[in-house]
Amino acid sequence: MSFKVEAEISQFGGKLYKLSHESTSTNTKMDVNVYVPGSSPKTKIPVLLYLSGLTCTPNNATEKSFLQYFAGKYGFAVVFPDTSPRGANIEGEDDSWDFGTGAGFYVDATEDKWSKNYNMYSYVHKELLTELEKHFSALDFSNISITGHSMGGYGALAGFFKNPGQYKSVSAFAPISNPSSCPWGEKNFGNYLGSDKSKWEEYDPSHLIKKYAGANQPDILIHQGAADPFYFRDHQLQPENLVAAAKDSNYKGKVLLNVVEGYDHSYFFISSFVEDHAKHHIKYLGLSE
Amino acid sequence: MSFKVEAEISQFGGKLYKLSHESTSTNTKMDVNVYVPGSSPKTKIPVLLYLSGLTCTPNNATEKSFLQYFAGKYGFAVVFPDTSPRGANIEGEDDSWDFGTGAGFYVDATEDKWSKNYNMYSYVHKELLTELEKHFSALDFSNISITGHSMGGYGALAGFFKNPGQYKSVSAFAPISNPSSCPWGEKNFGNYLGSDKSKWEEYDPSHLIKKYAGANQPDILIHQGAADPFYFRDHQLQPENLVAAAKDSNYKGKVLLNVVEGYDHSYFFISSFVEDHAKHHIKYLGLSE
Repeated sequence: MSFKVEAEISQFGGKLYKLSHESTSTNTKMDVNVYVPGSSPKTKIPVLLYLSGLTCTPNNATEKSFLQYFAGKYGFAVVFPDTSPRGANIEGEDDSWDFGTGAGFYVDATEDKWSKNYNMYSYVHKELLTELEKHFSALDFSNISITGHSMGGYGALAGFFKNPGQYKSVSAFAPISNPSSCPWGEKNFGNYLGSDKSKWEEYDPSHLIKKYAGANQPDILIHQGAADPFYFRDHQLQPENLVAAAKDSNYKGKVLLNVVEGYDHSYFFISSFVEDHAKHHIKYLGLSE
Repeated sequence: MSFKVEAEISQFGGKLYKLSHESTSTNTKMDVNVYVPGSSPKTKIPVLLYLSGLTCTPNNATEKSFLQYFAGKYGFAVVFPDTSPRGANIEGEDDSWDFGTGAGFYVDATEDKWSKNYNMYSYVHKELLTELEKHFSALDFSNISITGHSMGGYGALAGFFKNPGQYKSVSAFAPISNPSSCPWGEKNFGNYLGSDKSKWEEYDPSHLIKKYAGANQPDILIHQGAADPFYFRDHQLQPENLVAAAKDSNYKGKVLLNVVEGYDHSYFFISSFVEDHAKHHIKYLGLSE
């Protein structure tokens, strides 16, 4: 379905578009923000897909990540999808902050209750990009990389491993690295996918990396704040599990895990390291500093 | 009064402090955010005072301006004060979004109803800086510049002209440049200062520049979005009036007014030009790119 332009805003020499459309994956209206730089060294503009974390709309990262500054500087576009269907009217979808609305967990739900709407995996990696390609002819959706934060960091890693060849590179900020074995993953996978844990592993980066057989095996950049309570206290994130899984796999790229002292889980953490992630991705997107 | 540290957050290699204190100027508790860079080329760290616009708390600019990126890069601190007393319990203070709470208008109120609390001029330019100097011994409050947005842009310009020698340089984003003759200024000056318009001129940049006699006469950098409805539709901002007043004055610095096509009044506009403003101020603060 075509997009409705809700707002067109100038920023950093380019344009930020706030769009909405009716999704056939989620059967709801979905919002998405797209930043298009004012210019790019490439004839068609490369794209970075940024997946947000629990509770976020497309606006949080758009307002607070400052990714657009580097997108404008280096010449790539950024796509900020929403994190779940909204207003699906499913009983229980608004009962907790870390499940349901704002927490689509980037899976295609198989449990009856959720399977009509909660299909954020197909939405983000297939429908949304296909539709955006029709809308933005200046953007090159065959030259795209992926990143994300927390739930979105997991979503970026899973999306990369599950779609060999689709993304040139992947990085993540404080990703839920081994969701099959943490409380957030157990809650969301259990509800959306059911109790068969082998189904969970099909979305778990720390399992997927072991069976990844794509030709494209770029280095994977990860930042994790050492003062992030979801990391050191709650063990929701476990990036070390991904590092260990990578060692136990044939994946040729390095997992570049940076545990940064003093940083928390917030957008102040994200904004502090988007420059590193932008510089990481442009190498793979054919851009330069 | 000493500050209570409400939060200490890592960002861009430095620390963001969310502070509160009891103000003797406003007779209320006041919040203020201070960003301290991780390092600076100067032994004592220069300071930029950022005054926010109508409705804002210290958090809006802290989260959305992107100023801390350049503060961290060049080595200066940033002070983000609040825009009014809050909870003063004055009848009518919460009746409109552009007067009272969130709209202190950086004056010392003389009308009885407001004069006990609405003293943001003395608070921002005197009390707050004096108290912060005691708290942050690494910061150099004798090497300070000032900027701001909208009401805060006016506040920065007025504060610069009214305190010769206090600020090394001044800039503004979409400032209310001639508040004596626009609806926002008339409403706020009228309520806080009374009906004698000669009192209003004591805070009006387009009047103050004509009688400024300070030795320090730096260039004044201003950005104004051409698509800002408060500019082109409502005539609240009128930066051309300041340019005209400067021509009609002995002020030696240039008023560098940049009317930028397509930009609005939002933080997307501010964040797009904080780099230019940071580069403007560091010249006067003894820092370099």
